[in-house]
Amino acid sequence: MDLHILDHKLRVTSISKTGLQQYTHPLIKLIFLRNRTRCKFFSLTETPENYTVVLDEEGFKELQPSEHLQVEGSTWLPLNVVSNGNTSSSSQAVGVTKIAKSVIAPLAEQHVSVFMLSTYQTDFILVREKDLSVVVETLVEEFNIFREEGGESVPVHSQDACNGLQRNVPHATVHPVLIPENQFCVMSLDPDTLPAIATTLIDVLFYSNRYETFTSLPLILTLSHSLCLFFFSDECGIVAQISQPLADSDISAYYISTFSFDHALVSHFSVEVMC
Amino acid sequence: MDLHILDHKLRVTSISKTGLQQYTHPLIKLIFLRNRTRCKFFSLTETPENYTVVLDEEGFKELQPSEHLQVEGSTWLPLNVVSNGNTSSSSQAVGVTKIAKSVIAPLAEQHVSVFMLSTYQTDFILVREKDLSVVVETLVEEFNIFREEGGESVPVHSQDACNGLQRNVPHATVHPVLIPENQFCVMSLDPDTLPAIATTLIDVLFYSNRYETFTSLPLILTLSHSLCLFFFSDECGIVAQISQPLADSDISAYYISTFSFDHALVSHFSVEVMC
Repeated sequence: MDLHILDHKLRVTSISKTGLQQYTHPLIKLIFLRNRTRCKFFSLTETPENYTVVLDEEGFKELQPSEHLQVEGSTWLPLNVVSNGNTSSSSQAVGVTKIAKSVIAPLAEQHVSVFMLSTYQTDFILVREKDLSVVVETLVEEFNIFREEGGESVPVHSQDACNGLQRNVPHATVHPVLIPENQFCVMSLDPDTLPAIATTLIDVLFYSNRYETFTSLPLILTLSHSLCLFFFSDECGIVAQISQPLADSDISAYYISTFSFDHALVSHFSVEVMC
Repeated sequence: MDLHILDHKLRVTSISKTGLQQYTHPLIKLIFLRNRTRCKFFSLTETPENYTVVLDEEGFKELQPSEHLQVEGSTWLPLNVVSNGNTSSSSQAVGVTKIAKSVIAPLAEQHVSVFMLSTYQTDFILVREKDLSVVVETLVEEFNIFREEGGESVPVHSQDACNGLQRNVPHATVHPVLIPENQFCVMSLDPDTLPAIATTLIDVLFYSNRYETFTSLPLILTLSHSLCLFFFSDECGIVAQISQPLADSDISAYYISTFSFDHALVSHFSVEVMC
């Protein structure tokens, strides 16, 4: 399998619920007016706690600092696992079950945090730029690692990135898992279709006052450079570290990390198997 | 002819160019999400100076006070001149040339300011609520005056509104008239078509940075409760008091008042006649 380190430097930010109005102008630009911005990677996830916005440095410039904006200190790099080919364009995305076993679990053993963004077509594994050497050293045995640079895939060797990696002894950690009763609808949308549903999306994203109307559904909206993905939910709290046992049971899932929590979305029929 | 005093209490406000970003959230709601708001009358006019927003009191609640928002102190009432019928629904709108002669000129003689909002289908003459008795007294000889109240047209008699009107001696005032070289395009749009062009309109309204790109056209966008009208322009300064001589020459025009200026839009072929 190949592991591609994509050519984006990402920031992970959080906008408070009450701060959304203040950020309507830049967010609408980033979501709907792609030729107004040089932002190539954008993801917006709404949860009951806040709005998590992941975006590249060009997009990050659009967000004015304020008390409503929290910014994670690190720069993050998105990784993509592909199979059957030497370039990402000819390769097939690899299911998240394989990713859980071959990427997330080994990195967790090295205490490398990952930020997951599953989309309809592919899964992005975000790692902190400062952890890159550990990531390469950890994964180089199982993957051919490439770094995307200006459209080219440049092979990365362990010694390029690693300066004396210390193997950590894994901790035994137990995380609480919540399984809320909500159901999700996972959709993919061609970006060219976006204008046709703009007012509906703007309505749901910026104007549905869920403090008053419990019937309307919260929205998890993930937009990446090449595709759009929507998750509808009304509660959250599933923890991402569930990935290993799910993978062991061959249960595929969508993983969405947010500023405060991790979320694993599994099919309705898998819930009983998990329990 | 009939004069209808419509059932809206309007505020005339101005948003500064630099304040637009801050008001993106309420403005998009008022323009595009009509079932999210109880605002029934809304007009947005962009000029090089500022954004003039005229809206009823329900809409006005959406605009948070700030240094970027100026509010004209008065409450304004929209008047509509119609012919051939007793109710506004069965009546025909009357051309602005007739309005200039029969409404604007007599009111000007009484020193009653009007705020004009021409749209594709009709012309709204806004007068201050405190001037209503003078308006009724001035116009009652030439018009059957009705007040719209909860969908009903109630006849208004001079004594209902007037408490001792003093006829003023008209002043001779000379206003400078500028005729810029810009051309306008006047369009009408069914509100149901609005979602289809939402992203284009949002782009033009909120994201076209005309400080940098002189080629893009400023936009005068007038949205009323039943129709939408767009004016494109790149300069302004025509003064509304031009209406009387234009009417004398049978030149029809669109009149758009804004917070700072009045604008008369005449057809391209009328400019030579005016000069």
